Amino acid sequence: MNKIWILGAGQLGAMLKHAAQPLNIEVRPVETDETATFDIAANDIISVEREHWPVTPATEQLTQHSSFLNGPALAELADRASQKKLLDRLGLATAPWVDVKQGHSAEQLFAELGERVLLKQRSGGYDGKGQHWLKLSGSAEQRAIPQDWLDHCIAEQAIAFDEEVSLIGMRHANGDTAFYPLAINQHHEGILLATVSPVASKASLQGQAENMLGKLMDSLDYVGVMTMECFQVGDKLLINEIAPRVHNSGHWTQAGSSLSQFEAHIRAVADLPLVQPLVKTQSVMLNLIGVEYNQQWLSVPGVEVFWYGKEVRAGRKVGHINISIAERSQLLASLAQLEPLMTPVYADAIAWLIKHLD
Amino acid sequence: MNKIWILGAGQLGAMLKHAAQPLNIEVRPVETDETATFDIAANDIISVEREHWPVTPATEQLTQHSSFLNGPALAELADRASQKKLLDRLGLATAPWVDVKQGHSAEQLFAELGERVLLKQRSGGYDGKGQHWLKLSGSAEQRAIPQDWLDHCIAEQAIAFDEEVSLIGMRHANGDTAFYPLAINQHHEGILLATVSPVASKASLQGQAENMLGKLMDSLDYVGVMTMECFQVGDKLLINEIAPRVHNSGHWTQAGSSLSQFEAHIRAVADLPLVQPLVKTQSVMLNLIGVEYNQQWLSVPGVEVFWYGKEVRAGRKVGHINISIAERSQLLASLAQLEPLMTPVYADAIAWLIKHLD
Ligand SMILES: Nc1ncnc2c1ncn2[C@@H]1O[C@H](COP(=O)(O)OP(=O)(O)OP(=O)(O)O)[C@@H](O)[C@H]1O
Ligand SMILES: Nc1ncnc2c1ncn2[C@@H]1O[C@H](COP(=O)(O)OP(=O)(O)OP(=O)(O)O)[C@@H](O)[C@H]1O
Ligand SMILES: [Mg+2]
Ligand SMILES: [Mg+2]
Ligand SMILES: [Mg+2]
Ligand SMILES: [Mg+2]
Repeated sequence: MNKIWILGAGQLGAMLKHAAQPLNIEVRPVETDETATFDIAANDIISVEREHWPVTPATEQLTQHSSFLNGPALAELADRASQKKLLDRLGLATAPWVDVKQGHSAEQLFAELGERVLLKQRSGGYDGKGQHWLKLSGSAEQRAIPQDWLDHCIAEQAIAFDEEVSLIGMRHANGDTAFYPLAINQHHEGILLATVSPVASKASLQGQAENMLGKLMDSLDYVGVMTMECFQVGDKLLINEIAPRVHNSGHWTQAGSSLSQFEAHIRAVADLPLVQPLVKTQSVMLNLIGVEYNQQWLSVPGVEVFWYGKEVRAGRKVGHINISIAERSQLLASLAQLEPLMTPVYADAIAWLIKHLD
Repeated sequence: MNKIWILGAGQLGAMLKHAAQPLNIEVRPVETDETATFDIAANDIISVEREHWPVTPATEQLTQHSSFLNGPALAELADRASQKKLLDRLGLATAPWVDVKQGHSAEQLFAELGERVLLKQRSGGYDGKGQHWLKLSGSAEQRAIPQDWLDHCIAEQAIAFDEEVSLIGMRHANGDTAFYPLAINQHHEGILLATVSPVASKASLQGQAENMLGKLMDSLDYVGVMTMECFQVGDKLLINEIAPRVHNSGHWTQAGSSLSQFEAHIRAVADLPLVQPLVKTQSVMLNLIGVEYNQQWLSVPGVEVFWYGKEVRAGRKVGHINISIAERSQLLASLAQLEPLMTPVYADAIAWLIKHLD
């Protein structure tokens, strides 16, 4: 293998490249708007850091190449409707849903799914964008399907979940799989804000989760890392959505595991040995969203900062902080020292993290 | 600060660059034989990954620049004679020694230092090269100082040490310091083969070690990471030698600390906040010396491989394996799984590692 090309050059691509360097493997993230003609060697490998991409000369070169991995799987998962249909076919539990077509009305959706219905655009949405809530007892806007969304969205029953969790797994070409422990995730305004993993109280759900994601990866003959975001309702998991890539809720693995999700993906696509990732200690991650860099974060013991070098804009993922501190009193002291160095929304996130520590 | 230039582009430079990437800091390791004229910005910083370098256009550009850090300290430490004189002046214990001048004889050295005397070239030696043993009851070669070594070497009393340990510390421009726990080191044919850190039984020496290295760094107004290699004789430490840089015996920090020695050096030279590194768990490192890459190492849980991409030659450092596994039975199982995947010399190293686990 010469090198690994990654469609997309955001922070996930950068972290894939970073994780591959100790293995002396070259990774080339590609911006979708690049105009070059890429010299892709026969034994190169092409993967992705994103599930949606514009059709451009760059993405066409990569995705049409014979070395592009998981093409059909990526296509099937990229459209929420075909994704939900696949999950239904496999008997994997998800939120009850309807494929919203021309002629559908909000009233029909309320009748089928209940008083609160979440419309999700079939493709392109992320960070909670591309969502539209329908509420039977809501405003006029919440009692009508946006006209241009017909044929372009799905409708889901609102799930009153106890918790949002995610499972990240890896599958190699020979079918072998391995999984990280479940992570619990807190979102803020539709964007992941904080993660804790592992969580002892979720261990009883691990088997169920691995069966679900394993079945999905096998059915797609998928090679690489895949993420399954779930709602926990009592002792049942409902799949929210699938990301066929490394995921924000797995960044903790850089500090808290012997194998980061990024290295795991590289190993899978490069057909290197699979190994069960070990956990060093219960780990937390705080997502840096739309905040300016604060050098003082570096003064907190155990804080491991990843700053993406992106222009800071509201609602934009600009970095993350991993903390994997084995000793409880040190972890609490570090979180207490970190809190005043961050904006107020993180105080809630830190309180939530502390509540979920084993 | 624009970027950090590093004199030398070996694996230490590469790992400094790797560690700086999550901080979004650019590091430019420079091969000593580069012919370019470097565009060094006024607020760039220049540091080193090696203590000896040839005089070349590249090294002259870097070392003459006003942003070159620790120049006088590096010069004083690079020559073993001036290094030993400095340690003597500071009252820091080292092996009894003599500066070997024209006219010195082996007999004089035996009289001054005892029956076994180790000659060490004043500059350029590493991995045990540049050493010549003198033994009163040895061969003819061992009872004579090589002619061309006069004025160019020091002579040390052979120390019957219990253990070889090293301390790696960091000092910032404001004088603040922090230290890793002592590491114990096993050498093979003059080259570091294995490291364990922390080691509970060495905790009683930590204060003594920190006082010694702290005093040295303060006296030199040194900024960055510095390594102090010592002999342990009972409850006393004798300094063997100083490396004014990140060091092989500190690679374990990549897997076993919240702050790797590489990031620590970057923070110090870039005047970012200093922080006390935390230890995740007792860690071990195996140095890969002159061995071919074995992909099967990746199949062992907890094995974290750094492969430098250098041509494999006997006695050459080509990579390292870090292992930071919290759970003892898993650590032992992984070491047992790793052993047959390595050459016989590593069986002894692994046995030695296991003997020194807490
Ligand atoms: N059926 C549902 N019922 C209740 N809440 C939901 C439902 N579906 C999604 N949500 C909420 O909206 C959030 C975002 O949904 P989803 O993950 O589908 O969106 P996304 O825009 O694709 O996000 P991502 O950035 O993860 O790709 C979920 O994390 C959850 O909090
Ligand atoms: N005075 C001494 N008495 C006994 N053994 C010694 C003495 N000095 C050095 N040694 C042995 O030789 C080894 C190498 O010595 P030293 O570290 O000075 O050499 P080096 O070539 O500079 O090594 P490095 O690669 O660490 O720079 C030591 O680790 C130790 O095992
Ligand atoms: Mg999504
Ligand atoms: Mg989501
Ligand atoms: Mg040396
Ligand atoms: Mg040495």
